[in-house]
Amino acid sequence: MPTFSEAQLIEIGRQLLSAAGIPESEIDPVALHLADANMVGHDSHGVMRLVQYLQMVEDGFVRPGQSVEKVVDAPGFAVLDGQFNFGQVIAGAGLNLAIEKAREQGTATIFMRNCNHVGRLGAYTEAAALQGFNALMAVNAPGPGGVAPFGGIDRRLGTNPISMAAPSSQGAIVLDMTTSATAEGKLRVAFQKGESIPEGLIIDGHGNPSTNPADYYNKPYGAILPLGGPMMGHKGFGLSVMLDIFCGLLSGSGLCRTDLPRGANGVWLHLLNIEQFTPRAEYDQWMETYIASLKGTRTQPGVSEVLLPGEMERRRRQEREKTGVAIPDETWRQLTELATKLGTTIG
Amino acid sequence: MPTFSEAQLIEIGRQLLSAAGIPESEIDPVALHLADANMVGHDSHGVMRLVQYLQMVEDGFVRPGQSVEKVVDAPGFAVLDGQFNFGQVIAGAGLNLAIEKAREQGTATIFMRNCNHVGRLGAYTEAAALQGFNALMAVNAPGPGGVAPFGGIDRRLGTNPISMAAPSSQGAIVLDMTTSATAEGKLRVAFQKGESIPEGLIIDGHGNPSTNPADYYNKPYGAILPLGGPMMGHKGFGLSVMLDIFCGLLSGSGLCRTDLPRGANGVWLHLLNIEQFTPRAEYDQWMETYIASLKGTRTQPGVSEVLLPGEMERRRRQEREKTGVAIPDETWRQLTELATKLGTTIG
Repeated sequence: MPTFSEAQLIEIGRQLLSAAGIPESEIDPVALHLADANMVGHDSHGVMRLVQYLQMVEDGFVRPGQSVEKVVDAPGFAVLDGQFNFGQVIAGAGLNLAIEKAREQGTATIFMRNCNHVGRLGAYTEAAALQGFNALMAVNAPGPGGVAPFGGIDRRLGTNPISMAAPSSQGAIVLDMTTSATAEGKLRVAFQKGESIPEGLIIDGHGNPSTNPADYYNKPYGAILPLGGPMMGHKGFGLSVMLDIFCGLLSGSGLCRTDLPRGANGVWLHLLNIEQFTPRAEYDQWMETYIASLKGTRTQPGVSEVLLPGEMERRRRQEREKTGVAIPDETWRQLTELATKLGTTIG
Repeated sequence: MPTFSEAQLIEIGRQLLSAAGIPESEIDPVALHLADANMVGHDSHGVMRLVQYLQMVEDGFVRPGQSVEKVVDAPGFAVLDGQFNFGQVIAGAGLNLAIEKAREQGTATIFMRNCNHVGRLGAYTEAAALQGFNALMAVNAPGPGGVAPFGGIDRRLGTNPISMAAPSSQGAIVLDMTTSATAEGKLRVAFQKGESIPEGLIIDGHGNPSTNPADYYNKPYGAILPLGGPMMGHKGFGLSVMLDIFCGLLSGSGLCRTDLPRGANGVWLHLLNIEQFTPRAEYDQWMETYIASLKGTRTQPGVSEVLLPGEMERRRRQEREKTGVAIPDETWRQLTELATKLGTTIG
């Protein structure tokens, strides 16, 4: 497996996007986001996505060059129509607008519609946290999803993730989680390796528990279960439903749409400017006390330490800054094939 | 078991609160909230709480008559200091202020500190939804909690619930869930009955899985686990941590406080005025499509139907409007004893 530094991963993205004719100003929002996802260990959201994204450009689902329009604009909130540009371009514009508004108004709420896959939510909320905000971001799937309602069999929901972040002395505490039992990417990896998966993640096409990821990909199609399993799945389902409503309806994206490609997102972004609510020094002091309290607990048998939300990602980034990121051979083959097709070279 | 109508439950609350010398304007926010909790089936948050609440008044933890002060006040947000009045009085005032602000500004964010137990969150978010808002409310426990961090043994977090609500043609869709594997009330019921509980809800004082609720109440104290169990508990833990930070720090409540009674809350309330984001007719139409999609799925073996968030509560209310609410003998004994002590009669 070839191994690359973050700078090299960014350069790979820039080369491919540029060769595909993507407008200059839209290249870095995508290239930097994907490389960052690799660096923090979320390879399923990393440079491998370039193949899919540029195919979607060719198919007309992603529309580079389309401007992000303000459908609604008020001092403390806005609704943006991304017109199906890259999700990272739209969400990046939304984040900048949210920061601007929240600096002035104390809070900001931005909804985005007609938006492609925005990537890893934690990247946006962490960026906001590092600038002094508590941040919340959630996305839904107005188009096809793969998750069944609690007690149901059919696919009716996306994995509808939510991210929340807050600054701390270590940078930021960053939660980034799906409201489903698993992300689809993890199933795909097991499916491709021919491995089984733990119980409680999916059902088969008849609604029975399954540990075979093929039951998700082959007919009759099974579904991913909501977060929480048989005993607490109503909670994951409930969260997912509410995120569908907030992200899908307040953005004007709609729900249950059959005219959208898989991966389309309705986006909800909410920022709170900490210092307008409470003195920052007090916030920092309580935060230190709190982190020490959580990290100071005795651990369960077999557990070495309590990890805070986002701590794993921060450690993986530190590690990969030393080791680089190994790109699987098949992914690299697809990327170089794409480069050849676009008349450029990478790596 | 004596059985009462909602009107009778409200009257019981009014009698006791009035006899205890609670100021007139603070009686109904508490009495109506508790009776409503009984009506929707959450008896642990119902009139049985009067015994605890009035004991807390006697002990000086609940301070009736204290005004709710605005510590921070801006067009779109505020921070309120409840000065330890009843949680329902403070949260009710916060909800009214949020509605007023969100009508004008489109969104509103209210944080509340020095707040006693606010009761059932869904009551507030549903009330907001019925007035045209998408609503989010979360509370944390700045004082002692009973939940262990993911992988930890010691009690470090409250059950930190979150509620989200949105209007629909059936009234509202209302999620109201703890971020822990179970609410403490359910453990207490099993403990009192001498019953065991399902696996995955608690650990004993050594960090081992337990199905014996006594392991939670007896030394060495065990703890409640976060939502999600061994495989997905990092998600429930992560949500709980973020709610601690948002509710505890932006409200100025603080965290890890040892000077607060169990049940004290930091509160985060966020409203979005639907019609300022999207035409209400479009919202309603998407919502109908969505509900039909969720309810229309095939169901898993042994499951009769998919229930939407809050649907159980709505049904239980309809049922209890016919049958009334049966109050357990021991609860009734405590309430009548309290009435005698206060020199009044109830029922």
